[in-house]
Amino acid sequence: MEQKDVIYLDHAATTPVKHEVLEKMLPWFSQNYGNPSSTIYGLGRTTHEAVELARETVAGCLGAKSEEIFFTGCGTEADNWAIRGSAYANRKKGSHIITTAMEHHAVLHTCMQLEKEGFSVTYLKPDAEGLIQPEMVEQAIRPDTILITIMFANNEIGTIQPIVEIGKIARAHGILFHTDAVQAVGAVPVDVETLQVDMLSLSAHKFYGPKGIGALYVRKGIRPDIFMQGGAQERGRRGGTENIAGIVGLAAALELACSNMNETMKNITEKRDYLINRVLENIPYSRLNGHRTKRLPGNANFSFQYIEGESLLIWLDLSGIAASSGSACTSGSLDPSHVLLSIGLPHEIAHGSLRLTLGEETTKEQLDYVVEKLTDTVEKLRQMSPLYEAVQKG
Amino acid sequence: MEQKDVIYLDHAATTPVKHEVLEKMLPWFSQNYGNPSSTIYGLGRTTHEAVELARETVAGCLGAKSEEIFFTGCGTEADNWAIRGSAYANRKKGSHIITTAMEHHAVLHTCMQLEKEGFSVTYLKPDAEGLIQPEMVEQAIRPDTILITIMFANNEIGTIQPIVEIGKIARAHGILFHTDAVQAVGAVPVDVETLQVDMLSLSAHKFYGPKGIGALYVRKGIRPDIFMQGGAQERGRRGGTENIAGIVGLAAALELACSNMNETMKNITEKRDYLINRVLENIPYSRLNGHRTKRLPGNANFSFQYIEGESLLIWLDLSGIAASSGSACTSGSLDPSHVLLSIGLPHEIAHGSLRLTLGEETTKEQLDYVVEKLTDTVEKLRQMSPLYEAVQKG
Repeated sequence: MEQKDVIYLDHAATTPVKHEVLEKMLPWFSQNYGNPSSTIYGLGRTTHEAVELARETVAGCLGAKSEEIFFTGCGTEADNWAIRGSAYANRKKGSHIITTAMEHHAVLHTCMQLEKEGFSVTYLKPDAEGLIQPEMVEQAIRPDTILITIMFANNEIGTIQPIVEIGKIARAHGILFHTDAVQAVGAVPVDVETLQVDMLSLSAHKFYGPKGIGALYVRKGIRPDIFMQGGAQERGRRGGTENIAGIVGLAAALELACSNMNETMKNITEKRDYLINRVLENIPYSRLNGHRTKRLPGNANFSFQYIEGESLLIWLDLSGIAASSGSACTSGSLDPSHVLLSIGLPHEIAHGSLRLTLGEETTKEQLDYVVEKLTDTVEKLRQMSPLYEAVQKG
Repeated sequence: MEQKDVIYLDHAATTPVKHEVLEKMLPWFSQNYGNPSSTIYGLGRTTHEAVELARETVAGCLGAKSEEIFFTGCGTEADNWAIRGSAYANRKKGSHIITTAMEHHAVLHTCMQLEKEGFSVTYLKPDAEGLIQPEMVEQAIRPDTILITIMFANNEIGTIQPIVEIGKIARAHGILFHTDAVQAVGAVPVDVETLQVDMLSLSAHKFYGPKGIGALYVRKGIRPDIFMQGGAQERGRRGGTENIAGIVGLAAALELACSNMNETMKNITEKRDYLINRVLENIPYSRLNGHRTKRLPGNANFSFQYIEGESLLIWLDLSGIAASSGSACTSGSLDPSHVLLSIGLPHEIAHGSLRLTLGEETTKEQLDYVVEKLTDTVEKLRQMSPLYEAVQKG
């Protein structure tokens, strides 16, 4: 496979498992394989202890208590559980939920489903840079509001929300606050005490951990209804045999991410800004989507007028560059990104978008190559566009 | 760790990942890590193809079509999805569900939750050997019955249900039929056409695959409501980034299990019968729970009068034998097994139970050692029992 030479700029979609993470996972497949619930014998006690140690590690990284961390099968499950579980548990108090129009589909589709079940949902519209103003949240609160769910950082345009301010408002009104932090955890500091969130979702494969494992932080004293009915695992709140190797991998990856965070953030942010500046300088009729500074270290999202994002991606792939037009979860769809539409981009501009998300292993040399190929490709595609021709002729 | 010398007789709780399965999983962590939904570039196409190849393999093993296989985070999720999804999707048709009192908690607790939501559930009581008579199912059908969910083989006592006959009844009445086949798949032949089931749950870690991955078979044309809302994965019916390594491992493990099935079944059944016969011969006041022949090849479940199962397990652990009193998912609970109660065992006898589940690697020498230790331990524990003393004295 020639994939080693690929320049991978889709870290928001997923990341490779780090070798040191995989090393830590390996003993938990064939060697220490006991069911963590089978603590009556040694093999089960060993895996039980590993799960609890991983829980402590994750809690430590988030400023949470061990017993507030629940492992799930993925970030999507954590989102579904937090939102559906809170909605059902608080049905008697009210039926109104506040979210945003730019959430990940794990949140958005869950809210839409709840609407079908009789809940009412306010979808806040972000501003042109993708920010949700805290006062908008406060204005949307009604006497029957039971849950606010607003993502920490957007998966497409990278904008980071004022979670602390929103958390204060939620708490002042006694309303549960969940944040989908799948893109944030491992990339920027996330401390549940500072944030004043009640629930927080995360996913290992976004920070160099394995796919198929996530977690939900649930503040002590809060009890969303059970989402996955079953055995007594996760203190009776999430059935299903614990995915030990995945759990160990999640904890190892998060620990690594948190221990080097400041350095990594500085490093990646610098390269991101280099990329953004070079692209905007080199390519006319281009714009950066999302907030210029309040954004994820590794996220750059551009719109190029007069081209189709999909054609651009195909040409970049031919040049050995792996990039995306937005969320991996919605690829295959011909609709323009709901995130880009929510910040006010017209359809035709949203269609000409490109998300480049950098990782720890991204180099400046790679970015130079990408800028070169991107400049050429955008120009080539524009030459095929009758609209661009008309614009050029004035 | 001295765990290599342990005699592991809890294969119903979980199994080690086979080395050849782990080998096949390894390239999908750090090397081929692309998001399977990102088919616009090579890294994503590679993983997408691997997921689809795995789906074909699983379908082939079950006599299903590829598009009828949906990967989930575990067997518990598959059960939750099948049952909740079918209940909600058919709410307008009716609200009655038929199941059994001996189901796994993933099914039982899901049904109990649905009762709280207004559904009505009939819990069929098995006979003394753990069998559900097909005519009982037929008699329980009401005009508003929308779902029958009956497990293929019991996780505690191993009894295999007459699924073909129940399937025929369900189909004749036009009622959806789901079976939790988590204990059966990989252990005995499971063909969805022969069985006439509409939905079937399975879990990789029960047949030497990894933990954290399961699947739900859903017959073409049947659409249970979505359980996990999110992206467009699994043809829009189950959100969450695909756990590629897990999916590849599930398929590899199932393929291995199915290719050697007849030989393995014969081999394990022979050893199981050897164990059952020796235990019943050697230990007075002992009984076999479950059906004598209609049972999983690897399952032996005994009750020993006048002893506590938990003390027995602790002593066996000290002798290097890993066994259980029932489901791993309920360990830690002081209640006697709901399965043993459902077949009519009195509390005190249910409490003195032991499940020994054999695997491919179990040897006759191990079983001889187990019988010896078990005989001694039961006798020792009985010597401490005032009740046993009274019985001995007549």
